[in-house]
Amino acid sequence: MNQKLSTESYKGVRDFYPADWQTEQHIFNVWRKTLQSFGYTEYNASILEPTELYKAKSGEEIVNEQTYSFVDRGGRDVTLRPEMTPTVARMVAARKRELSFPLRWFSIPNLFRYERPQRGRLREHWQLNADIFGIDGSMAEIELISIASALMKNFGLRDEQFEIRISSRRFLDAIFADWYEIDDERAKKLQKLIDRKNKMNGDEFQSQAEEIVGGAFNFLKLDPSDELYQEAMAVESIRDAKKEIDDIILSLENLGINNVRLDHELVRGFDYYTGIIFEIFDTDPENRRALFGGGRYDELLSLFADDSVPAAGFGMGDVTMRDTLETYGLLPEISSETTVYICTTAPTLSELAFALAKKMRAEGLNVGINLTDKKISDQIKHASKEEIPYIITIGETEAVKDIYPLKNLLTGDEMKRSILEIISILKQ
Amino acid sequence: MNQKLSTESYKGVRDFYPADWQTEQHIFNVWRKTLQSFGYTEYNASILEPTELYKAKSGEEIVNEQTYSFVDRGGRDVTLRPEMTPTVARMVAARKRELSFPLRWFSIPNLFRYERPQRGRLREHWQLNADIFGIDGSMAEIELISIASALMKNFGLRDEQFEIRISSRRFLDAIFADWYEIDDERAKKLQKLIDRKNKMNGDEFQSQAEEIVGGAFNFLKLDPSDELYQEAMAVESIRDAKKEIDDIILSLENLGINNVRLDHELVRGFDYYTGIIFEIFDTDPENRRALFGGGRYDELLSLFADDSVPAAGFGMGDVTMRDTLETYGLLPEISSETTVYICTTAPTLSELAFALAKKMRAEGLNVGINLTDKKISDQIKHASKEEIPYIITIGETEAVKDIYPLKNLLTGDEMKRSILEIISILKQ
Repeated sequence: MNQKLSTESYKGVRDFYPADWQTEQHIFNVWRKTLQSFGYTEYNASILEPTELYKAKSGEEIVNEQTYSFVDRGGRDVTLRPEMTPTVARMVAARKRELSFPLRWFSIPNLFRYERPQRGRLREHWQLNADIFGIDGSMAEIELISIASALMKNFGLRDEQFEIRISSRRFLDAIFADWYEIDDERAKKLQKLIDRKNKMNGDEFQSQAEEIVGGAFNFLKLDPSDELYQEAMAVESIRDAKKEIDDIILSLENLGINNVRLDHELVRGFDYYTGIIFEIFDTDPENRRALFGGGRYDELLSLFADDSVPAAGFGMGDVTMRDTLETYGLLPEISSETTVYICTTAPTLSELAFALAKKMRAEGLNVGINLTDKKISDQIKHASKEEIPYIITIGETEAVKDIYPLKNLLTGDEMKRSILEIISILKQ
Repeated sequence: MNQKLSTESYKGVRDFYPADWQTEQHIFNVWRKTLQSFGYTEYNASILEPTELYKAKSGEEIVNEQTYSFVDRGGRDVTLRPEMTPTVARMVAARKRELSFPLRWFSIPNLFRYERPQRGRLREHWQLNADIFGIDGSMAEIELISIASALMKNFGLRDEQFEIRISSRRFLDAIFADWYEIDDERAKKLQKLIDRKNKMNGDEFQSQAEEIVGGAFNFLKLDPSDELYQEAMAVESIRDAKKEIDDIILSLENLGINNVRLDHELVRGFDYYTGIIFEIFDTDPENRRALFGGGRYDELLSLFADDSVPAAGFGMGDVTMRDTLETYGLLPEISSETTVYICTTAPTLSELAFALAKKMRAEGLNVGINLTDKKISDQIKHASKEEIPYIITIGETEAVKDIYPLKNLLTGDEMKRSILEIISILKQ
C-alpha cells in the first residue's frame, strides 16, 4: 500500500469532529426539548425507502434530478430519503387503526439531496420534522406556528429578528380560479412561477406571469387598501380563504405572537400542500431569507389508503439554523462533558487511577485518565485543551497517603482532599 | 391515483414508532452516559463514504457482497458505511497534527449491510463505536474492556450473565508461524477457517485445518495443563503474546472484573486487527452467542498517512443488545415525556388552553392540549393511551373562576387548584 487513501469525506457532506457534533447536539436538544414541551413524541425510520414513495407527490424536480436512487443487489429501487413527510405519512397510514389520534409526532432525520453544495445547502443535512395528524381545523396550524416561534425563541432569537409569513394553497387557488379564471394546469404553472420569483429578473417574471394568465397580472403588488384588492375580496371563495388566514394571525396575536403576516408570494415547493402554508424568515437585512416552513397536507395519506387523515407539519434544517445562530452569535461555547482528568507521575500508577476513577464514576462523575508516559505538564496541557475543568494528580506519595491534589484549571485553585471529599466537591 | 402505495418499509430495515424509538433512545442513552463517564467525547460523520475507503481493510466478503455501493449522478463511487472504523480512522488521519492525543472518541452511527434479514441481523442497524487513539500499551485494552463490562452492568446485566473472551492476533500469528510453522498465506486461511468454525461441522473443520497446517492440528482443544500446550509456551513469541493477555486478565481482576478468559478460538472478522481482540458473550444456555467485540488496529491509519497512530476500539450493535435486554427482561417500560394533557369541553376553550399551556411550558413542563371536539371521556382515554400521567379539564366555569381540576390518571386522585399551584405540584 504505497498509494495512500484520501482523508476527504464524500463531496457535500460533513465530518462532525467533537466540537462540530456538540454544536449539532445543541441544535437537536433545543428541537427535542421544545417539541416535547408541546406534547410531541419522537419517532424515526430508516433512510432507505422504496423509490416509488417519492414519485407521486414530492415534486418532479426532486425525484428526477435530486434524489440518491439506486437499484439494490436484489433488484429493488431504493432511495435515500430526501424528506421525511412521505415516510411519516406511510407509517401513519400503516397503523391507522391502532394509533390514537390526534398524533403529535416529531423526528430528527438526516436527509439526502444530490445538488451542488453551496452555503446553506449540502447533500446530507439533518432536519427537525414536526407533524400533527387528525386535526382538520386551524388549531393545528396555530399550534405548529406557536412551536415554530417557540423554537426561534428557545434558540435565543428575539421577535424582531424573524418574521412568520403565512398564506394558503386554498387562497392562491381561489385567486387563480375565481379572479384570474385560469384552469388547473395554468394555475399550477403560475404557482411554480411565483415560487421561483426571487430567483428571476422582475421583468421576466412579469411577462411570463402575464402570458400564463392571458392578461395583466398585478395581484402580488396590490395593497389590501387598493380598490382592486377589495374587489377580489368580494369573491366568496377568496374572502373565505383569506378569513382563515386572518383568524389564525389574530389567534396568534392573542397568544403574544405578533410577528406573523400574510405573504401573497408564499407558495412552498412541495406538491402535497392543500391548505395553510407558512415560512419563517430571517429579517436581518444582510441575510433576508426563508429559514424553514411547512403547511397542511390533508391528501397525502390517501396515497396509501382509501380514506385520508388531516395532517399538517413543518421541517427545520440544521445547516440553515446553524448559519443563523452563527450570524446572531447564538452558538454555545464548546465545553467538556468530562469533569475531571486524573494525571499520573508514572505508568505504574495507572491501576490506582483506574480504581479511583471507578469510585468516582459510580457516583455519576465523568472521569478521564492519563494512560501515557508524558510529563505532568503535558498531561495538564492535554486536559486543558480538551476543556476539562478539573485535574487530580497522583504520585507515589498520594498513593500511600490516599490524599490527592484537586486543581481547578479555570481558576488555578488547588486543594488536597480524600477521594470521598473530592467526589462530594465535584458533584456540586 | 387508484393504485395505492404500499405502507411497508424497505426490506430489512425498521420503522421506529414512538414506543420503538423510546427503547432505542434508552439504549443510546446508556451508551452515551457510560462512554461519557469514561471521558469519551462524541463525534459523527455522514453515512456516505467514498467506496475506496472499504476496499483496503474491511475484508473481501463485506466489500464484494455486502455493501450498499452505487455510482452517484456525478460519477463518484459511493458506499453507505457498513462499519464506522474506516471513517474514524480517516477523520483522525485528516487532523493528526491539530488533535491532542490520546483521543477518546465514541459515536452512535447507523450502518448498512446488504444481507438476508434474520434474527439479530438487519440491513440497517445502529452501533456504539468507542475508540482510543494514541495509546500503544495494554492500558488502552484494559480501559476498553472495563467500558464493555460497565456497559453490560449499566444495562442491568449481572456478571454471571456474560463472559468476556480475549485473545490476540499476535498470539495467533505466533502459534501459526512458530509452532505450526506455516507461511502468512496459509496462516490467514487458517485464521478465516477458525472464524467460521462454529458455522461448520466439526469433522469438516478438522480436516480443512489439517490440510492447511499439513499435519495434526490440535491447539484449540488443548488445556493449559497439557504437556503439548506447555511446550508451545516455551516458544518465546508465543509466551510473550500470551503474557500480554494474562497481564490484562490480571489487571481487570484487580479492578473487580472477574469474568474474562482467554479464548483460543477467538479471531474476529476484520482484517485490520493487529493485537488484542475481545468479544462479550451471552452465557445464557439458550442464547450462547457473541454480543459485541473489538480490538487493536495499529496499522489502519497508515492507509492514509506515512506514519501510523496506535488505535483500539469496539462496536456494540442495537439489534443484538435489544434482543439480549428483552431476553433478560431488562427493557424499560414505555412512559410519556408529556406530564399533563389539557382537556376542553368546547372548541371555543382552545385559546384558553393554549394560554395556560404557554404558562406551564415557560416553567419547563411538557403539556399537550386537546384540539378536537371529542367527548371529555374520549379525550381522557386518549391521554391515558398515550401514558400521560395528569389531565386538567377546562369548562366554561373553570374559565371564569381560574381554578382547574387536576387529575392523576394513575391514582385517580383529583384536586382543584389555580394554575400557579398546579405548576408547582407538577414540577415536583
